[in-house]
Amino acid sequence: VPFGDTLAARVCERESQLVLGIDPDPRALWAGTATARGDGQGRGTGDAASAQRAADAIVGHCRALIDATAQACVAVKLQLARFEIFGAPGADALAIVAEHARAAGLLVIADGKRGDIDVSAQAYAQALLGGMDTPFGRVRGLGADLMTVNPLMGRDALQPFVTAARAGGAGALVLVRTSNPGAADVEDLRLTDGEAVWERVGAIVDELGEPGIGEAGLSDVGAVVGATEPRHLARARELMPHAIFLLPGIGAQGGRVEDLAPAFAPGRAGGLVTASRSIANAHQGGDGSPADAARAEAERLRAEAWTLG
Amino acid sequence: VPFGDTLAARVCERESQLVLGIDPDPRALWAGTATARGDGQGRGTGDAASAQRAADAIVGHCRALIDATAQACVAVKLQLARFEIFGAPGADALAIVAEHARAAGLLVIADGKRGDIDVSAQAYAQALLGGMDTPFGRVRGLGADLMTVNPLMGRDALQPFVTAARAGGAGALVLVRTSNPGAADVEDLRLTDGEAVWERVGAIVDELGEPGIGEAGLSDVGAVVGATEPRHLARARELMPHAIFLLPGIGAQGGRVEDLAPAFAPGRAGGLVTASRSIANAHQGGDGSPADAARAEAERLRAEAWTLG
Repeated sequence: VPFGDTLAARVCERESQLVLGIDPDPRALWAGTATARGDGQGRGTGDAASAQRAADAIVGHCRALIDATAQACVAVKLQLARFEIFGAPGADALAIVAEHARAAGLLVIADGKRGDIDVSAQAYAQALLGGMDTPFGRVRGLGADLMTVNPLMGRDALQPFVTAARAGGAGALVLVRTSNPGAADVEDLRLTDGEAVWERVGAIVDELGEPGIGEAGLSDVGAVVGATEPRHLARARELMPHAIFLLPGIGAQGGRVEDLAPAFAPGRAGGLVTASRSIANAHQGGDGSPADAARAEAERLRAEAWTLG
Repeated sequence: VPFGDTLAARVCERESQLVLGIDPDPRALWAGTATARGDGQGRGTGDAASAQRAADAIVGHCRALIDATAQACVAVKLQLARFEIFGAPGADALAIVAEHARAAGLLVIADGKRGDIDVSAQAYAQALLGGMDTPFGRVRGLGADLMTVNPLMGRDALQPFVTAARAGGAGALVLVRTSNPGAADVEDLRLTDGEAVWERVGAIVDELGEPGIGEAGLSDVGAVVGATEPRHLARARELMPHAIFLLPGIGAQGGRVEDLAPAFAPGRAGGLVTASRSIANAHQGGDGSPADAARAEAERLRAEAWTLG
């Protein structure tokens, strides 16, 4: 099944376009979840034991965050950096959290923003998607449904990700116009024909995605388009009529759901609204428990986007 | 000590600007090294046991490759994708190989081409460099001396890497003009003022690196400039007079050492010549052992670059 159809069905079934961003800060985990994993209260000393304890605590936090909000979401987005810092225990934690999200009925987006060429790009794609066969046996991948990729190095850096995703019924989300101020430094540069660099990247996304358009009209090559600059959304949609847009920047970064309408032009699954800190930290400054506050904020965002789409 | 001075001293001491690219393909490991680790001949079944066996075999291969060629090299460049595919055992293998390289007197370049913003960029930098303090204890990083980073998202995606590197006496290598054909798709696009996108990125590299120039005249913010397009090297040097250039593309990709002279303008440590497959696969089609062939090829490249610089 082409990924666009998988997503369209899932969005419809869950009545949600909301993506829970999982970005765990070891210094700001929810209280009372650190023992949730139950099998890793390591008492050892040294760096390796610390990494194991931190990774275990992060698993507990992430499980609680998923359990609290899954009902309002269609997917989780895992920020890989926050797991890699813990080395091998972090790699295990990432796999456990992805599995927990799947068990809760959610799709999994691996947010690693990888970009490389040839066999390296292929190895990244295998790591994040379905793994590979080796002379030592089958090696499992993370099993993600979508992965973010960086287009700086051009088509031959994107194609291995697209090929691997398409073969496995998954998708790739290309960084087109990101939500940070630094997007002005490279992505917004003007080319001789008047277009911005990001618009040219958008055209490449449309081209690479063309063979992967499903019956719902959505392609398996999507785009990351920041929600902080809504004036770009209409233009992005013009350039990429079939792309799934991942829309970061809502909440903590200042983006507003009501500005996202152009993203939903090809249907509700055309735009995935992602929020991280505004959900995980919703309890700060309030009375409720972290889980209750997160659930309420996720449901609020879900309903707001659903009304719009 | 600013990283540029560390590198200049190391290049001088080892009489080498050669970087051994470590990019292990599990289907093409050197024969007879798979048991070199000695502690991981797992007999289990299933994906996890396969990943452990593959990671162990890769450690054996990489140790043998380093042992054979270290004398001709100043650094190793670890392609992170090839380790990540093995999950937790891959993360352990990466750390073991990095430590083996250090013990052989080599600097370590983490080639992950990471690019993200804010706390995510900071987490990647901590993972690759010196780790972080957590409420669960100190977590160790990979301890790399240099890491490759992707500038697509702009200055605020680069600065956390630069800040972390500078604080730890390490350096960052920004992708400026890569060695793949796809570089034409984005990096080579012409801007309204006639410059290419990559030239604008080069100017950002120069600006970010200015506070990190050491006594040897080299900065802690360097650039990846492909050796496959030598006509770009002189222009890159003009834009980034103090940057350390990492020069991929020699050998298998068609680049030639004799075209690299402009890279060495600020001194021999101004250019790091990196070769992967042409060293690891030097024995193919010949009579000698993999180790002997790799050693000879590494020494040939070292001498060629040293004569030029």
